[in-house]
Parts: sequence; C-alpha cells; structure tokens
Amino acid sequence: MDGAQEPHNREAFRQALVNTLERRLFYIPSFKIYRGVAGLYDYGPPGCSVKSNVLAFWRQHFVLEENMLEVDCPCVTPEVVLKASGHVDKFTDLMVKDEKTGTCYRADHLVKDYCKDKLEKDTSLSEEKVAELKHVLAVLDDLSSEELGAKIKGYGITAPDTKNALSDPYPFNLMFQTSIGPSGVSPGYMRPETAQGIFVNFRDLYYYNGNKLPFAAAQIGQAFRNEISPRQGLLRVREFTLAEIEHFVDPDDKSHPKFADVAKLDFLMFPREDQVSGRQARRIAIGEAVSQGIVNNETLGYFIGRVYLFLTQLGIHKDRLRFRQHLANEMAHYAADCWDAEIECSYGWIECVGIADRSAYDLRAHSDKSGVPLVAHEKFTEPKEVEKLVITPVKKELGLAFKGSQKMVVEALEAMGEKEAMDLKATLEVKGEAEFHVCTLDKVVTIKKSMVSISKEMKKEHQRVFTPSVIEPSFGIGRIIYCLYEHSFYTRASKDGDEQLNVFGFPPQVAPIKCTVFPLVQNQQLEEVAKQIARSLTASGISYKIDITGTSIGKRYARTDELGVPFAITVDSTSSVTVRERDSKQQIRVNVDEVASVVKEVTDGVSTWGDVQWRYPTHSS
Amino acid sequence: MDGAQEPHNREAFRQALVNTLERRLFYIPSFKIYRGVAGLYDYGPPGCSVKSNVLAFWRQHFVLEENMLEVDCPCVTPEVVLKASGHVDKFTDLMVKDEKTGTCYRADHLVKDYCKDKLEKDTSLSEEKVAELKHVLAVLDDLSSEELGAKIKGYGITAPDTKNALSDPYPFNLMFQTSIGPSGVSPGYMRPETAQGIFVNFRDLYYYNGNKLPFAAAQIGQAFRNEISPRQGLLRVREFTLAEIEHFVDPDDKSHPKFADVAKLDFLMFPREDQVSGRQARRIAIGEAVSQGIVNNETLGYFIGRVYLFLTQLGIHKDRLRFRQHLANEMAHYAADCWDAEIECSYGWIECVGIADRSAYDLRAHSDKSGVPLVAHEKFTEPKEVEKLVITPVKKELGLAFKGSQKMVVEALEAMGEKEAMDLKATLEVKGEAEFHVCTLDKVVTIKKSMVSISKEMKKEHQRVFTPSVIEPSFGIGRIIYCLYEHSFYTRASKDGDEQLNVFGFPPQVAPIKCTVFPLVQNQQLEEVAKQIARSLTASGISYKIDITGTSIGKRYARTDELGVPFAITVDSTSSVTVRERDSKQQIRVNVDEVASVVKEVTDGVSTWGDVQWRYPTHSS
Repeated sequence: MDGAQEPHNREAFRQALVNTLERRLFYIPSFKIYRGVAGLYDYGPPGCSVKSNVLAFWRQHFVLEENMLEVDCPCVTPEVVLKASGHVDKFTDLMVKDEKTGTCYRADHLVKDYCKDKLEKDTSLSEEKVAELKHVLAVLDDLSSEELGAKIKGYGITAPDTKNALSDPYPFNLMFQTSIGPSGVSPGYMRPETAQGIFVNFRDLYYYNGNKLPFAAAQIGQAFRNEISPRQGLLRVREFTLAEIEHFVDPDDKSHPKFADVAKLDFLMFPREDQVSGRQARRIAIGEAVSQGIVNNETLGYFIGRVYLFLTQLGIHKDRLRFRQHLANEMAHYAADCWDAEIECSYGWIECVGIADRSAYDLRAHSDKSGVPLVAHEKFTEPKEVEKLVITPVKKELGLAFKGSQKMVVEALEAMGEKEAMDLKATLEVKGEAEFHVCTLDKVVTIKKSMVSISKEMKKEHQRVFTPSVIEPSFGIGRIIYCLYEHSFYTRASKDGDEQLNVFGFPPQVAPIKCTVFPLVQNQQLEEVAKQIARSLTASGISYKIDITGTSIGKRYARTDELGVPFAITVDSTSSVTVRERDSKQQIRVNVDEVASVVKEVTDGVSTWGDVQWRYPTHSS
Repeated sequence: MDGAQEPHNREAFRQALVNTLERRLFYIPSFKIYRGVAGLYDYGPPGCSVKSNVLAFWRQHFVLEENMLEVDCPCVTPEVVLKASGHVDKFTDLMVKDEKTGTCYRADHLVKDYCKDKLEKDTSLSEEKVAELKHVLAVLDDLSSEELGAKIKGYGITAPDTKNALSDPYPFNLMFQTSIGPSGVSPGYMRPETAQGIFVNFRDLYYYNGNKLPFAAAQIGQAFRNEISPRQGLLRVREFTLAEIEHFVDPDDKSHPKFADVAKLDFLMFPREDQVSGRQARRIAIGEAVSQGIVNNETLGYFIGRVYLFLTQLGIHKDRLRFRQHLANEMAHYAADCWDAEIECSYGWIECVGIADRSAYDLRAHSDKSGVPLVAHEKFTEPKEVEKLVITPVKKELGLAFKGSQKMVVEALEAMGEKEAMDLKATLEVKGEAEFHVCTLDKVVTIKKSMVSISKEMKKEHQRVFTPSVIEPSFGIGRIIYCLYEHSFYTRASKDGDEQLNVFGFPPQVAPIKCTVFPLVQNQQLEEVAKQIARSLTASGISYKIDITGTSIGKRYARTDELGVPFAITVDSTSSVTVRERDSKQQIRVNVDEVASVVKEVTDGVSTWGDVQWRYPTHSS
C-alpha cells in the first residue's frame, strides 16, 4: 500500500490495482462490446456492492445521525433553474479544436502537459524559464481565454494526436443538453449537481421542519458533466454519483450544538496561509482551527470533523487525507470559506469532498429568478424597536411628470437601498432635484423634492426576515471509492512464496461480500452443512459466496481475498467449522449453528475480530 | 381504504390522499417555484425514506436471496446500443399537433377520451355505435398511424384546449436525446430502461459467475421517457426508478431449483384465455398454473411467486393484486410468455411489474450489432456424435467464375441454413446447376455442381454453444410506491369525533420514520430522558422524530399517524415510558433503557407487536 507513495512506483502500483479491479469486475468500461464511451464506467457486482455499502454508511453517519431531510429529485432539469444557478452561463471549460480534424481538447490540459513535460524532460531550460513554467502551472486555473490562447500560440502547442494547428480557446458548456416534451421548445439539461433540487424546495423543507433553523437537507443521486476529454480513469467521468448536504443556518449564528463532539479531533489541515507561504499541511485540532479563525465557523468545522470520521471509518488512511482550504482565487466571491477533503492516491492529492460555506448566494439567486421568497423568519419574543428606512413616493406628482412610466419610477424609488436613498435625500434637500436612474426604463429621469419623501423611522418589528446561509458538504462517491481501492489494496507472497497475491483489506462494513462458505473437500455431507450455513447467512442479511468446487482451499482463499471478503467459513466437519480473518489469516473454530451470528456480529461492527477470537478456540491448520 | 373500490368514491379518495401526500411532502412537483415541469416529481423526506426502504427490501428479497449479480450502469447511453435494442427505431408514441398552436397530444389518448366520453354521456347512441366505440377502445393499442388518423378525422376530434384542427398522427421517439462529448457527432440518449446495461455485459457476468447458468443480474436506477403529455399524476412520469432483473437460463431447461418453495402460493391470475372469453381473474396456485401450461415455465412461475411475496409483504393488498397474462397482440413476437403484476388503485388496474420470458432476443440483437458473441457453453462430460451440415466451396472453380466477387459468393454459400443448403444440393444433383441469390452482391448468380460440395457428416462435439434465454422481472418502483400509498391510506374519527384523521398504515419495514419520541409535558427532566432515548435509537439505526413542543399528545399522535409512523414513545416518567402502536392505538409500558431495543425488534420484524404486547404490561391512558 505504501508503495503508492513513491513516485516511481505509482504507475506500477496503479496498473496492478486497475488490472485487479477490471478482472474482478469492480468496474467495467461501459458498453465495452461497442468499444466503450470515454468517461463512462459500470460498477460490476463487487463494485456495486461497495458503492451500496458506502452509501448506506453515508446515510447512517449523516442523514440518520443529524436527522437530515433526505430528498430525491429528477436528473432532468429545466433551463430556468440552471440559468438562475449560473450553470447555463458559467459552467464551462475552455476548449480548442484541431483545425483539420475537429478533435477537441481542454485548453488548460494542453498547457499543463506542455509545462510539465518541459520541466521534466528539457534539461537545457534556463532558471528563468523554469520559474516561468512553474508560475504558469500555479496560476493555470485563473487564466482567461485570451491568456490561455496566447500561451498556446507562444509555446507553439499543437494537437497532440496530429500535430495540426489549434483554434483559439472558446468556452464549452459541460452540461448534457436535451429537450423536455415533444414540442422542442423547452430546453433542459441533465443536472450537473444535486444541490439545486434542494434549494428550489427550501420553502417546503423549512415548513416541514416546523419553520425552524438550522436544518439540513440531503440528496444522493446521479450528476452529469459532459467532459471535453475525460482523463484519469475513474476520477474524471461524465456521469457520477454525488451525495450532497445543504445545511441551512442563521447567518448571524453559525455555532453548532454538537461541535464539542468533534472539537478534539486532530488531522492534517492545509490552511490558505500555509499554502501561500509554501509550508506543508499540518495536524491541527478542529476546535483550535475554529477558535483561531482558520476555519470560518463552528458549523463548517463540525462538518469537516464529521467528514474526517466518515472517510477514515470507511478505510481511508488518515495520513493520506488532508483538508485543504481554498485560496482566495479558487473561491466564489460569495463564499465565506471553503475546504476540500483531499485524498492522496497514485494521481496525487485528489479532491473528494468539498465543504463550503456558500452564504446566501443560492437561495437569493432562486428567490430573484422565481419571485418566490426563500427566506426564514425569526419571531421575537417581544417586539423590537428598529430603525427602518421609509420611502414614500408621492404618486400624484409622479403621475403628472411620468404618466405611463409612473409605475416603473415608483418601483425604482421603493427598491432603493439605504445608502442610495439617503444620498438621494441629501441631494434633493440641497438642490431640490436629482438625476435618478430607472433600470426598468433604462434611462435617467429627474426627480423633484416634491415627488418622494425619504426618512428613517423607529418601528416595532415582530420578527426578523432573512436569507439563511448554506453550508454544503458535497461528496464525490466514485472518487472516494477509487481512493478507497488504492488505500485498501496490497499484495503478499503466496504460501509457497511463488507468487504475489492481491488483497483488498476493506473494513467489513465496506466489503462487497461479507463471507465465503467453503466445504473443505467435495463431499455431500459437508456440502449440505455449507448450504445450511448459507441459508442462515441469508436470513441474517449477510451476503456470501459459496464455492463447492474442488479447488484447493488456498486458491479459494486467494480468489476471495482479491475481492476483499473479510471472513471465510471452511466446513471441515458437520458440527463445527473454522472462520478465517482475511488480513491476519488467523482462524477460530465455531459451532455450525452459531457461525452466522458470529459473522453478523463482526460485520455489523458489534464486535471486533479480537473480541470473537477471545471467545472461541484458535484453529491452526 | 375500501372506499377506493367504489367508482363514485374514487375521485374523492384520491383527492384526499394526494392532498395528504403533497402537504406532508411525500412528494413535491419538481421545480415547483418555477411552476414545475409536467411529469417530474421529487420525493420529499418521507417519500424518499419510503423509497429507500422499498429498495432495501427489494435488494434483500431478490438480490441477496438469489445471490444475484448487481450492477450499476450509466444513464447516458450511446446511440449504437439503443439502435441494437430497437429503441431508436421503435420506442415511439403516435402524436398529433394542434395545427395552429403546435401543442402536442398523444393520438391514442384523444381517441380514447372521445370514445369514453361518448359512451358515458351520449344517451342517444345506437346499439351499433356503442359496440363500435367499445371495439375501438379494445383494439386501440393495435391501431396503425393511418387507422388512428382516420378515426380522428372520422369522429371530428379537435385539439382539446383550442378546438383547432389536428395534424395527421406521426411517431415521436420517447427517448431524451443528447450529445456525448464536445464534437456534437456522437448522439446519445438517456436510457429508457436499465436492462440494456446488463445485456451488453453478459459475457463478463457469465465469466464472473464461473461460466455457469442459470444466473441473474440486477440493476436499480433511473430511466427516462419523454412522454408527450404526462397524465395520471405519479403513475406516468418522465423520469422514474426501475429495478430490473435479467435471469439468464438455458432455453432447453427452464426448471427452477427453488420452484417448490412457491408452488403452493395461490393468488389472482388472469390468463389470456380468461380475458378473451370475458371471464374474471381467479385464484390459481402457481404450481398448478405451471403444470397446466398456463404459465410457460418454472422459472417464470418462480418469479411470479416471488413478486407476489414481495408486493404483499410491502403492504399491497392481496385482493387488489393480480397477474395478467399478455394477449398475443400485446407481446413482442420473440417473447415466450409475459405476465404483468397489476395493482388496483383509483386509476384502475395498473401495471407495476412486468415479468417476461424474452427468449434469446436481446442477447442476439447485441451479438449481431457488436460482433461479440454473447453465448453460453455447455461442456459435455463426454463428446457427443452430432449430425453437422458441411458446406465446402471449391474456391478454384468459384474464382474462375466470379473473380473479384468470389469472396462474397463463398461467404453466401457458407452462410446457408440447413434447409437452403439441402435444397441447393438436390437441385445441383438433378440439374447440374442452380440459381443462387447473393445478398451482399444483391444479385442472383448461377452455381454449378463443381463449385460446392454439400453434405451431412457425423461429428464429435465437445460442447454445445447457445444463446441463453432471458427472463426479466422489471419493477416500476414509483408506481408500486403510489399504489402502496393508496392501499395504506385510511381515515378514522378523532377522539372527540369532530374530525376525520388521516393514517398511513405502512408496515414497519416500509414506514418512513420508525418511531416518535414525545415528552408528555414540557419539562426539562422528561426532555432529557427523551434525548437519551433518541441517542439510543440513532445508535440502533432507527429513524425517529422528536417533538418537544407543548402540543397535546393527541395532536402529536395525529400528526405522525399521517406520516405512517408505526410506534410512538411517550415519556411520562424518568424510569419507564409508553409505546403506542399506530393502527390499534394500544399502548404498553417499557423501561427507558429497554425501549430502543423493543422498537428495533418490532421494526426489524424480529417480533410482532403481538409478541411484545404479551411481554410488557398494557398501559391504558
């Protein structure tokens, strides 16, 4: 497993892993008999089972533990929703085309490959040039279309497959587009994330929660990104499962009642300042990180801690997991703070979970577009005196002056913010009139002092109305599973030392199949016992694999170690059987009628292997 | 519940149900704040939970019980796959357009509505006319585009919304189309079913299963149909969850080893003959149905029995569930037999599960299109003598006669079937030459006796190579859930008799939330106990709702009865609490530290309410 950390071993390690994964059908390139489609993969039987287990644990760890409201919304999404969220306009990558063949490439990938290749292979580079290329790599995500185009031209980058000239970069929208209904006039998209389905339901979910904050909604489902040229195997795909949480909270109070439960956890964190000043990720207790202001607030910190527990309990190594804060330039302007859970694998540090405080952005965007206020209310126990801006347009005067446009002017006056209104008031008081821009008319009109009264008054308020902040942990399930494969995979010598055997050291909870049942020899009596045990395993809800072939026990163990099966039951008598643990290869002897419940205990996590070893006699073969 | 069976009550019953479902967020019209999209619905929190429970039970009942190979394939599917399956050419509905507004309608729906309306409301119809309209309704699904068009013209049917004239009917493909990758040259579709993902993986799955038949693969996932004009609320939607099983079996042996386990089950069946001769569905034991040849084979019968158990254990009433055999005209030409599990609800008898023996059709279609043989092998224990057709083209003679076309002629000769070859041989022997059609040349050539030798020889065969048959149970999860809502919903008078209260009588396994925790009065001590119980419920994996408001206990019960919560824990002391069962409203008294495990027992189905009632003292309030 640790071999993966040595750069020169990474490729070989990954190749061995991927061979095993494909051979044992953890995954299958989709539509393989038709030569497949880049970026689409099937989960084969063991992979599908690992995925179910990961999702079941996610539901237990997040949804059930926090009493979240889980929803399930369609993938097909009408354009208006993704227009409001910004995806129609901004969910793009910059693309260049081979000018002769029309083949498309991601512009930033070509520049990245060029720089990396130069830095690795060209020993004649000047120090200045090295610095320049490193700088380009560092700022790659920030380059505009024009800047990327200039780099491609400047470096003489051509199409990798043909060496033909390339077009200028232009934005390509990554959503799969379709059309809803038969008329062809209702454009729709396959959702690029599941979050929007939650935001548009905020009002109903808030009501369902008894009009109380904070609460979280969650969704597990497919998301789609029509990648220009998918790379990195299972890490960058065109369809994937997301599990997303939207935790709605009062922007004035982001404390979390259960923060104390996680505050003492310490793990690798990589704050913005440490990245900028070239330091390494370091262990920090999440309680410290919040109290020092490294992490913006308790709720964000709470979820970081819970994500750490989730990933490490799944089997991600804690030394190869870090929480990296977004740099200022990575973060959307509206975000209050953002951390990625990054897992180290043979491709480097990979973003697997994003944990962002998105403030009020999403709810405001949908309020504006739909006209439906997505807000929360805080009822005061007794009315509060608050200073309120009062704008009273004098309709008679405005009507005389603006006739048919009166309504638009009135609305524009009423919509003024505090500063704008007080500025207008000041000008009117000094000059008697003022220029005023009415955006719905797209022109500037002259407002006279007699046309509007502006003042601040003390008012009694019974409640506060506000747009909640959203804290969003978003999990790329496929990426987590791939990293889990890397962290779980190891090899060990066979008994005779002739070959290296593959093992997936999955925790029992994650393992695709919980146990195997092997009659020691081909014999009707032992087979009957094996089938009886199989029935009691099914009744206990334990998945198993029964192998009644005459293959040697060693080979049967090896085959199922490669599937990560944690326990093997070998039937060598009609009264008692042996149970072998995969990683230690230790065995205990258990009565036939007890064995299903013993396996259930250790796979459900009620007992550890150590516990049951202590209770049952050791068996040495 | 039974009110739903009286036609005049159906509408009122459905309205009450749908009101409750929407108000309690079992479902939400998707993108509601943007006025929604027809045929798209979200599962809100309780609906989402019911769905998870149904799917978990499906996995336990089918995948785990039968050791099925579960896979998980993408929704985005390239055109070639759906071309092979026939969906690109044939997955269509006939559509007509309002000639002025362009609004689209399903042609058969308009004709159906016209006939039904006439039959219901026009009392002046002649007997002849009544018979004609009834006949049209009966054969509606078989009418061609031209015939439907003629009916629309003949009856003077116009656009329902505008009364404008309608276009002729034309086919509209129901798949959502998209484009894969940035070039725009790779058309793709959102899958209309999950089955194709399994068929294209047959070779790998067969290998994974140790090259043994029978075995079944299963898949749960989203499917998409771009309905022309969705109707019937939750029953006809544009995106839905399917759970499909493809059971691969030797066409020469469709027996099932576990058939005896279901053979004695009897339930409502509606064989083809009974439908045609106007009889009613009747109770038949599935063992009888197979032995009498009503159901084609044991494997099909086994799955019909397992589907019956699945649906009734979920909470579908056995008297409102029937298995209806497809009529000859409903069934694809390749299908050996096909039965639908139909559930009665306020919309009538609704197809919720299709159970079809699709013979070798799907695997052959993908073998042909991809060139990859999707076949199984039966190794003989000892070689068998079989008579084989041997066709040996004499290439020298053929080369002289056909020159550049020789290859095509040779291939055409070799591709002859047994009958064609033996006919050719006979003609050649009598006349010395014969006319022969070469389809790749699109012409008829003359074959002389010297050009080919045709014979039958006895050969030793070591194995039999064949295309497996597929038996496919396909579950519309959303439809099953909707019918479950109808079968579970009932009302009862409140304690004071003033109002009718809604209850969902879900079995504990299906219920969205398993129990509630209510402190009897607002009091810190009781709230602490409530929270302690809540923590132990979470630890046991039991979903719960805690309500510490001062609302009366009666109101709190009513609120959660309407969500179908089966058990309510009321905290009235610090040592023991009451547990109330939803339907009987009976209560028992249980110690605080035992209550979580008691609730777990009854929700997991380890014990019944009757069992625990016997063990704990009754509480009368």
